[in-house]
Amino acid sequence: MNPTGIVVTSPPRADPETSDRLGRFGVATVHEAQGRRGLMASSLNPIYRGAHISGTAVTVSVAPCDNWMIHVAVEQCQPGDILVVAPTSPSDAGYFGELLATSLRARGVRGLVIDAGCRDVAELQAMDFPVWSRAVSAEGTVKETLGSVNTPVVCGGRLVEPGDVVVADDDGVVVVHRAEAEEVLAASVAREDKEQRLRARYAEGELGLDVNSMRERLARKGLRYMGYDEYVKEVRGQ
Amino acid sequence: MNPTGIVVTSPPRADPETSDRLGRFGVATVHEAQGRRGLMASSLNPIYRGAHISGTAVTVSVAPCDNWMIHVAVEQCQPGDILVVAPTSPSDAGYFGELLATSLRARGVRGLVIDAGCRDVAELQAMDFPVWSRAVSAEGTVKETLGSVNTPVVCGGRLVEPGDVVVADDDGVVVVHRAEAEEVLAASVAREDKEQRLRARYAEGELGLDVNSMRERLARKGLRYMGYDEYVKEVRGQ
Amino acid sequence: MNPTGIVVTSPPRADPETSDRLGRFGVATVHEAQGRRGLMASSLNPIYRGAHISGTAVTVSVAPCDNWMIHVAVEQCQPGDILVVAPTSPSDAGYFGELLATSLRARGVRGLVIDAGCRDVAELQAMDFPVWSRAVSAEGTVKETLGSVNTPVVCGGRLVEPGDVVVADDDGVVVVHRAEAEEVLAASVAREDKEQRLRARYAEGELGLDVNSMRERLARKGLRYMGYDEYVKEVRGQ
Amino acid sequence: MNPTGIVVTSPPRADPETSDRLGRFGVATVHEAQGRRGLMASSLNPIYRGAHISGTAVTVSVAPCDNWMIHVAVEQCQPGDILVVAPTSPSDAGYFGELLATSLRARGVRGLVIDAGCRDVAELQAMDFPVWSRAVSAEGTVKETLGSVNTPVVCGGRLVEPGDVVVADDDGVVVVHRAEAEEVLAASVAREDKEQRLRARYAEGELGLDVNSMRERLARKGLRYMGYDEYVKEVRGQ
Amino acid sequence: MNPTGIVVTSPPRADPETSDRLGRFGVATVHEAQGRRGLMASSLNPIYRGAHISGTAVTVSVAPCDNWMIHVAVEQCQPGDILVVAPTSPSDAGYFGELLATSLRARGVRGLVIDAGCRDVAELQAMDFPVWSRAVSAEGTVKETLGSVNTPVVCGGRLVEPGDVVVADDDGVVVVHRAEAEEVLAASVAREDKEQRLRARYAEGELGLDVNSMRERLARKGLRYMGYDEYVKEVRGQ
Amino acid sequence: MNPTGIVVTSPPRADPETSDRLGRFGVATVHEAQGRRGLMASSLNPIYRGAHISGTAVTVSVAPCDNWMIHVAVEQCQPGDILVVAPTSPSDAGYFGELLATSLRARGVRGLVIDAGCRDVAELQAMDFPVWSRAVSAEGTVKETLGSVNTPVVCGGRLVEPGDVVVADDDGVVVVHRAEAEEVLAASVAREDKEQRLRARYAEGELGLDVNSMRERLARKGLRYMGYDEYVKEVRGQ
Repeated sequence: MNPTGIVVTSPPRADPETSDRLGRFGVATVHEAQGRRGLMASSLNPIYRGAHISGTAVTVSVAPCDNWMIHVAVEQCQPGDILVVAPTSPSDAGYFGELLATSLRARGVRGLVIDAGCRDVAELQAMDFPVWSRAVSAEGTVKETLGSVNTPVVCGGRLVEPGDVVVADDDGVVVVHRAEAEEVLAASVAREDKEQRLRARYAEGELGLDVNSMRERLARKGLRYMGYDEYVKEVRGQ
Repeated sequence: MNPTGIVVTSPPRADPETSDRLGRFGVATVHEAQGRRGLMASSLNPIYRGAHISGTAVTVSVAPCDNWMIHVAVEQCQPGDILVVAPTSPSDAGYFGELLATSLRARGVRGLVIDAGCRDVAELQAMDFPVWSRAVSAEGTVKETLGSVNTPVVCGGRLVEPGDVVVADDDGVVVVHRAEAEEVLAASVAREDKEQRLRARYAEGELGLDVNSMRERLARKGLRYMGYDEYVKEVRGQ
Repeated sequence: MNPTGIVVTSPPRADPETSDRLGRFGVATVHEAQGRRGLMASSLNPIYRGAHISGTAVTVSVAPCDNWMIHVAVEQCQPGDILVVAPTSPSDAGYFGELLATSLRARGVRGLVIDAGCRDVAELQAMDFPVWSRAVSAEGTVKETLGSVNTPVVCGGRLVEPGDVVVADDDGVVVVHRAEAEEVLAASVAREDKEQRLRARYAEGELGLDVNSMRERLARKGLRYMGYDEYVKEVRGQ
Repeated sequence: MNPTGIVVTSPPRADPETSDRLGRFGVATVHEAQGRRGLMASSLNPIYRGAHISGTAVTVSVAPCDNWMIHVAVEQCQPGDILVVAPTSPSDAGYFGELLATSLRARGVRGLVIDAGCRDVAELQAMDFPVWSRAVSAEGTVKETLGSVNTPVVCGGRLVEPGDVVVADDDGVVVVHRAEAEEVLAASVAREDKEQRLRARYAEGELGLDVNSMRERLARKGLRYMGYDEYVKEVRGQ
Repeated sequence: MNPTGIVVTSPPRADPETSDRLGRFGVATVHEAQGRRGLMASSLNPIYRGAHISGTAVTVSVAPCDNWMIHVAVEQCQPGDILVVAPTSPSDAGYFGELLATSLRARGVRGLVIDAGCRDVAELQAMDFPVWSRAVSAEGTVKETLGSVNTPVVCGGRLVEPGDVVVADDDGVVVVHRAEAEEVLAASVAREDKEQRLRARYAEGELGLDVNSMRERLARKGLRYMGYDEYVKEVRGQ
Repeated sequence: MNPTGIVVTSPPRADPETSDRLGRFGVATVHEAQGRRGLMASSLNPIYRGAHISGTAVTVSVAPCDNWMIHVAVEQCQPGDILVVAPTSPSDAGYFGELLATSLRARGVRGLVIDAGCRDVAELQAMDFPVWSRAVSAEGTVKETLGSVNTPVVCGGRLVEPGDVVVADDDGVVVVHRAEAEEVLAASVAREDKEQRLRARYAEGELGLDVNSMRERLARKGLRYMGYDEYVKEVRGQ
């Protein structure tokens, strides 16, 4: 009954090229492109600014205040992966630091997403190993209780399955399910193209009201323009 | 009865030069200079460090998770303005990103203060468009419900009226009411002068106790100095 | 009965060299070296990244929203100290800014740890005076009520006595009791040596599972490896 | 310039009968009836369940951790009033307890709304004096700094002017501006009538989908019904 | 690609008798019995104390600040169900009140679990319709955007599939996956039996140290008993 | 060096009669009587309303998510004690439930104060065993790591030593140091007498302004009364 204590070896992963190409788009773009789904809670923040990665998820379910399974997970990682860690009960302790990052880097892992705390942030920044976490905390953890590797986890309020694509940047983290990765990539390309055109027009001074033809619908909903004097007399003057 | 759905065009704004000159002072100085009033909640933070702006407020009241009225507000902006956005119900979604910033910049707007979330923070930092927000979130919003532009809003726990002066830096955001702007500017100048003199004396090693003549009042209140041995015997030794 | 209103002059301080040498280690290392004790709450964060200091504590107990005793405390500081400030009731107002930092620097103080708010963060970063605080807030404080200097305080959930060693970096703040400073220093040296060796092996691609001989204990606890197909059939297929 | 230190005597109040009648409706109803405006933040909670009051606001702006002005405000109260207190900086200390409640009750005040903390909650419940507060805290406050009475305050994120109507129940607190009180009362009556009819139909088993004619609009937006087997094959089977 | 806008009709549900019998056990017992899995975040609280229910989940994914899909979901409910609602982005608005409860009750639904806000709590308590929610808020929601019914949702940090068993009491909410319900029921019975025996022995004054044979393992880990005088001399006397 | 793993047997306790008599006063009164010290953070709340206890502290330091040492502590308890538990790192898991309460009750313990989570709250209320905790959570804990019993702990931000008096009611928790218990009791009696007299005068309609002779000091600070018309003209009319 209880899937705790399982390590799934070699789960299928999303296509590496698709995973890589998704990383060229921002989290906001990918999130919109897949219909505003998959965004992790904004309580997960980068420990330093400027990183922007994508990769395939190796998932880790850990007991609270126990980072043992992260050591187990390292062995399951391959180049292009991102480690996704969630404790089974909320905890902000520091499950991860530069030693584990050194180990992950040696296996080609691109970063960590953890619904808990992280430490050694100065060292992690110096070695440019990006982490998105819920807290920075030097508090240590134990190695006593089993969890699982490469089984589904809920991280930042979103379901992540092993092999899903994770995209992370300064805005946060979004997960794209493996089976939808190509479709979301195509939608991201299309959205970025559209935004590129909008950006150019906005920079020229065109208004969103006109570019997006909003005026008629606003009027239909009852939007009313009034001069300041009129406003003071009619609305304030009650 | 309900002021929702109103756009007030051309409300009076504080004098531009006064607004500009207030921006030479830090938020803490302006806040003190106007009698410790007008400071927004410290939950509103800059999305990146180092920006320091002042400007006249264009206010926007938006429905929760709906950024439609920001598009409406762009048209009401002029050079030297700062957009001030507050949802009518708490929400940390990402109402604002680099496309809207591009549009605002084209109109000479200096920045955004939003009692909600913001996205595209890497792009906003790259284009140096400063934002003070309650959260960073890639979560998108809809365009379904009317709000208002240039009517009074409560943002960060403070009342902001259109045309008020807003000053924002790494410490947060302070609002100065339009009718008080000149007076607050004068008080800020005076305070800064005084602090300049204090700073020089402190740097020389003079103590605040002496510079501010605090010793007598402290003694009157009963402050008592004791050596460590005396303390251990008398207080700890109970 | 009530120790409020007391300034203890010249309490014993930890050995300066020990204090300095502890500062060569990160907060996480020192925290682990003393048996996972002494770490302040992760709600205390550096106002800017990159500072790493150690020093002997001068403790200040202040009334909420009242920074008067910080002025009193400056006089009790000597080179190598770190000021540790805790209000007697929670408050995030800005008790400290660049004027007080100027005064502390003139006395050789290395930084501030405050279980409350701080302001003038841009100026503090420019003068490189590091602060760890619970909030950034420009909100001013008054000078009405006595507190104490150099009596024990609880800061960030940890007891700090005057003369204790404080170490602070991007991960947070840890306190080392005066009487234990040498022992913790020795333990930190030993831990750092061990981590240095681990780091080298991890960088070579060795696994924590092997380096730390974890496999047998994991197996004994029941950890089970299974291929993806087996997993889908046995666990998911229920 | 600075309105701190002002007590406005006898500001106009909303009509007492209108104020009383608004109290027959729940906060949710009044909030909806006035177009989803005026609701205070849900961080303001009743200290005990079951109270439901309305009244005219006497507003108090207090310094943080200082309840002096509440004593000043008592004198300005008359039967049918509700005291509305907001500190100028966030604080959860206990500004109010049963002694002040005894004093307010003697003047016919119906309750307190405070954007801060409250104490003596067992005694307040025993004497049935309802309070909506952000925290329960025994922490005392001082009497050192002036504030104002009967000037506009922002409480729970909403602007309250003296004489406005406040309605509070287990759901929270809503403010109705004085000039709009009659109109909002009429709208509340209408809404309650409509809800009464809906309630009866729902209790009979009719569906909101039918009662509110939602099916067509849902279909137009693309809502699609599918059996479980179809769902598993089409959506999950990707 | 996007499962938004789907209503799955008649998904398989856990066996009703198993679901009912699970409700005889507390949330803590069920949570332990299934290996400390399935517990929702402790931020989901009952709106009133004393309710204890179990039932089969009808899941609803709603847009933030939009409760339209709850109306759609009512039609999919049958006696013995519990509605489980999660917004796709965090929001504490009041999605649910007594009108919808009236409608759900007419269909035999036992309660609501919602990772968002709820209103009309006095009325809900009066009609004894239990709700577990993240907030109490009178803030209204709109009916503009589609979501889904009876597709998997993440609620309170846990994955819930339609037809899963939900147990909720004053301690919180736990979800039991449909396929595991019988096994978890058996484990709950066994655990309750064991606890019953422990309770009797504890009530007699036996110690957990003895009943659970902890003394030897504690000694092996190094636990050391010392008299107060010895402690003061050896540990404090450093 | 490391006091973890120590159980101090029979530490001195405050005088039982003094401890009992302190429990006749509310937390707010005791807190004021000892000079506004010793109040635990308002994040510690009673799991049900109406309990009011005092007793001598048995202190327990536990590892995060590990309740082993509570079992150890039970043996050290005697009639009139209150258990005070603090984890060495923040955690809201449920360390305590009705089985442990049954065991504590058998030893005459009056209640629990825990800077973490508690479960079985319905059962605890039914057996009237009061608990003040930071959270209600059914999440279980392990029994793997040593802590200490009857060594000083920081709980709710306050230092508690074994044998100190703890008073707890609906307002929260206050700790009175053993050596100060008699003095604080005397001060509580005096304060209560004074409040009794104030209460009677307030109930008669006398004002705090007069009873406490505040008018002169307010005037000296500059408090100014003005009629509404004067206010509108002078202050608003700027």
